[in-house]
Amino acid sequence: MTRICGNADDFAASALRGFCLAYHDVVRPVRGGVLRAKPGASGKVALVVGGGSGHYPAFVGYVGEGFADASVAGDIFASPSTQAIINVAREADRGGGVILGYGNYAGDVLNFGIAAQRLQAEGIETRVLATTDDVASADDAHRAARRGIAGDLTVFKITGAAAEAGLSIDDVARVGHHANDWTRTFGVAFGGCTIPGEKEKLFEVPAGRMALGLGLHGEPGIDEQAIPSAPDLATLLFERVLAEAPSGVPRTAAVLLNGLGSTKQEELFVLWDHLSALFADAGYSLVAPLVGEYATSLEMAGCSLTVTWLDDELEPFWRAAVETPALRHGVIEGDAMLALPRLPEPDVVAFEADSRDGRAGGICVAAALSKLSQALGKAEAELGRIDAQAGDGDHGQGMARGSSAADRAAQRALAKGAGARTVLGVAADAWADRAGGTSGALWGEGLRAFSTALDDTSRPTLEQLADGSDRALKRIVELGKAKPGDKTLVDALWPFVETLKTTLGGGERGAEAWRAASEAAQAAAEGTRDLVPRLGRAKTHKERSKGYPDAGALSLALATCVIADFFVETTG
Amino acid sequence: MTRICGNADDFAASALRGFCLAYHDVVRPVRGGVLRAKPGASGKVALVVGGGSGHYPAFVGYVGEGFADASVAGDIFASPSTQAIINVAREADRGGGVILGYGNYAGDVLNFGIAAQRLQAEGIETRVLATTDDVASADDAHRAARRGIAGDLTVFKITGAAAEAGLSIDDVARVGHHANDWTRTFGVAFGGCTIPGEKEKLFEVPAGRMALGLGLHGEPGIDEQAIPSAPDLATLLFERVLAEAPSGVPRTAAVLLNGLGSTKQEELFVLWDHLSALFADAGYSLVAPLVGEYATSLEMAGCSLTVTWLDDELEPFWRAAVETPALRHGVIEGDAMLALPRLPEPDVVAFEADSRDGRAGGICVAAALSKLSQALGKAEAELGRIDAQAGDGDHGQGMARGSSAADRAAQRALAKGAGARTVLGVAADAWADRAGGTSGALWGEGLRAFSTALDDTSRPTLEQLADGSDRALKRIVELGKAKPGDKTLVDALWPFVETLKTTLGGGERGAEAWRAASEAAQAAAEGTRDLVPRLGRAKTHKERSKGYPDAGALSLALATCVIADFFVETTG
Repeated sequence: MTRICGNADDFAASALRGFCLAYHDVVRPVRGGVLRAKPGASGKVALVVGGGSGHYPAFVGYVGEGFADASVAGDIFASPSTQAIINVAREADRGGGVILGYGNYAGDVLNFGIAAQRLQAEGIETRVLATTDDVASADDAHRAARRGIAGDLTVFKITGAAAEAGLSIDDVARVGHHANDWTRTFGVAFGGCTIPGEKEKLFEVPAGRMALGLGLHGEPGIDEQAIPSAPDLATLLFERVLAEAPSGVPRTAAVLLNGLGSTKQEELFVLWDHLSALFADAGYSLVAPLVGEYATSLEMAGCSLTVTWLDDELEPFWRAAVETPALRHGVIEGDAMLALPRLPEPDVVAFEADSRDGRAGGICVAAALSKLSQALGKAEAELGRIDAQAGDGDHGQGMARGSSAADRAAQRALAKGAGARTVLGVAADAWADRAGGTSGALWGEGLRAFSTALDDTSRPTLEQLADGSDRALKRIVELGKAKPGDKTLVDALWPFVETLKTTLGGGERGAEAWRAASEAAQAAAEGTRDLVPRLGRAKTHKERSKGYPDAGALSLALATCVIADFFVETTG
Repeated sequence: MTRICGNADDFAASALRGFCLAYHDVVRPVRGGVLRAKPGASGKVALVVGGGSGHYPAFVGYVGEGFADASVAGDIFASPSTQAIINVAREADRGGGVILGYGNYAGDVLNFGIAAQRLQAEGIETRVLATTDDVASADDAHRAARRGIAGDLTVFKITGAAAEAGLSIDDVARVGHHANDWTRTFGVAFGGCTIPGEKEKLFEVPAGRMALGLGLHGEPGIDEQAIPSAPDLATLLFERVLAEAPSGVPRTAAVLLNGLGSTKQEELFVLWDHLSALFADAGYSLVAPLVGEYATSLEMAGCSLTVTWLDDELEPFWRAAVETPALRHGVIEGDAMLALPRLPEPDVVAFEADSRDGRAGGICVAAALSKLSQALGKAEAELGRIDAQAGDGDHGQGMARGSSAADRAAQRALAKGAGARTVLGVAADAWADRAGGTSGALWGEGLRAFSTALDDTSRPTLEQLADGSDRALKRIVELGKAKPGDKTLVDALWPFVETLKTTLGGGERGAEAWRAASEAAQAAAEGTRDLVPRLGRAKTHKERSKGYPDAGALSLALATCVIADFFVETTG
């Protein structure tokens, strides 16, 4: 809903003032709308576009060099008055006549139509251009009754470029009508919008559902269904628009994937990821496609796909330079990219020439990482549940992803003959890369520091393992600045390392020493229930964490336990 | 919430692919992020920015000439991995070293910090620049602990421009830290956002309330209050940011009014309408201010105000040309416009030289319009209630606004000595201009046609009034294409005109003839209860309108009744 409002009666006028203040280098205000700050060439045809407000950047954002000469702005979702249209058009006229561009809505048809008659009677050559791109608003047999929606952008851009190029008024009008004849849009809506000052939405779409064919103001749709996945939505939009392709059009097109208000750029990019492949598969060349908000409906959720087929006459006008709030670019060369180049997989780093003992060491480390990945995969949900008490609940997912990536990277390094040091180093980097976040970085750096205590030519010794654990602890403390008692993984890692060093120094065998250290880690992890986080967590998170152990300490303890079992298996 | 999703695990990666496809002329994909499609000059310092995804155009949209050389993109709201940062930075390095720019969040500090150490160890000169503009995230004494939010845009833009200008890495870093030291942001949130694939919002703000100081991911705010009016919100943001101004700064600044996701451009422009006045009153010169979405949080509702104070070193970098998806402009000259020029009131049209009889005619028409405005003002709510059955309920408001504007315009014309024809013509245009919509246009055009039957040199005659009514009817039918029985104002206007002509022809006195015609109009308006609308109304509206009279016919009948009473008053 509209939250920034003040006097609702003044909303559209205030927004227009704010727009003029923000873009005073491009537009200047006149009664009823805006003109270009720098008027076009004398004698050129003036394109004056307009309609209700609430559709930004339609229509005032279309004003500027290479596009519209002026825009008339009505109240929210309401046609501008005849007087406003006449006033703006008179000011916009450069002696070459005026083309009035608007969507094909009853109020606009009436007001722009009357204005055109009067302007013509005053001696200003005037033509009208009503967009009719919305294929859902009437069937093909009644194309003239269709509404104009996001196709306003492509049709008016092409018309404006033709006017900028110095064509006569009849030629500009012909180009505009041709662009409109070759433009089709189909849209879907996930949620409604609210007129400023009102409390209720203008229309609602049930949760999880999607209305097909809704216009720019929530005009009745033609159907409703559950929201499909992104690839299926791409297919739906693509098929609905392509099914309405005019006969005999080339496979060259301007395409606009338009957001209606609160459907975000990331969502549109996801959809474009799939849509571009559909166009590529259909053999299309796309010219300067647009993915973003170009004709909105306040905070309505939804999107639409517009295709304007381009012949040799229309294409240069679509590619032409433009300098407006909505669209700024120079002349566009080349076609769109519809498939990405495949990125090379990162290579395994170099290591010392392999040896039998070195290989054995690598196998041993890789096997341990594989066990670890299995155990953390099983513990994912439980670790997530515990982490959600104190944080955002992504710890289990991060550990599962990280250890799984480390497992795979270790196997790849092993296949190339790497030893213990390289296998663990490569796995550490893969862990951090895939796990992300703070704990991913700490685990990655910790394991990497651990690996520097190993070598590529022998099996890891007990002393190397103890030294590696110590290096991991020191690196993690250095990076994370945590001390024991801060309720982090250091609470478990610290007693593990201390116990390992002590028991090894006391002459215990490796498996027993590791087991004892692991038990110390587990006890300490359980003990974090009584602690309050000290580092970088908000007060509410601190309170929620009371009585719960730290997920990071738990997963560290679990890891040491898995390795202890592995010791027993392999060393008996 | 996020509706276009598919596989949630792949959301950020898919959005990045879609972005690269849409902007292949500006960026090209690498593992972990994007590079400029056209690399900067050899030897220049490379600015590599990054952070979690979900903040578009932060950070991938900042890549391009004059801004960043590359961007690293993490998962939604999650820091990119150390490996990703290193990989992107290596590719971005042009031999002049790398500056890593990121918001001051724990995960980013860790990953970018480790990456900087490793890059430095590899022999690539590396500096870090963590933004700390969010004044709500820590108090002034702990500025280094503050988060980076929308100030990312201004700080990194200035830093990128310094790198583009060929400064050394230490100078670019110094400029970047200086810009960050002089940047402050304060934000408010009206509603939360949803991680793709999740059903629940990450956080909620109670309806009608506003959280103060929320970060880019819904980090805990510092306070909550009812949403204030637009001017009060402008004052709140202005005062919170200005209260944190660094000491000794000039009154020249870059300003960014940033939308967080579903707060729309129109709302931001309304806020800017008020904010620009506050900056003007405080004696500020603003350079190239920005009003739009530059650092978002998926579909979060809210906005923030960022001020970066500019001295002689920073200002040229802020004005410098830039060519990125987020920001495209040449070198910017001049300051912002902070107040709009006053638009001239439209002048009353010319009329024949005044005469005593002409003036009397003008007075008579103006008085009738004044009565009409009073009556339609009183009927506004009732007409709105009836219209809401079949339409959007704005008929009463439109008639009240239109007739009131006509009344005022008539008084202005009268004051200049205009006669009946001019007074009614001017009033007609004012009616249409202020009422808007379809019925505003029809009334304006109808009254204008009526006025052509009058003259400016005599009192209106009965014959002129009948002729005027007939001309009004013809014009309205011509424009609106309605026939009697279509459930429009024509249902009342048609019998009115027919009865007026018949009774006058039968020799009735003016007042009686008008009264009889008015009664016919009222009966016909009531009779529209039994009709179904035929023109341009959706099926649901048609069904809802059953049993209700047409609001347009009712208001027409009411108008004729008011004039009948006026006849009796003035002619006895």
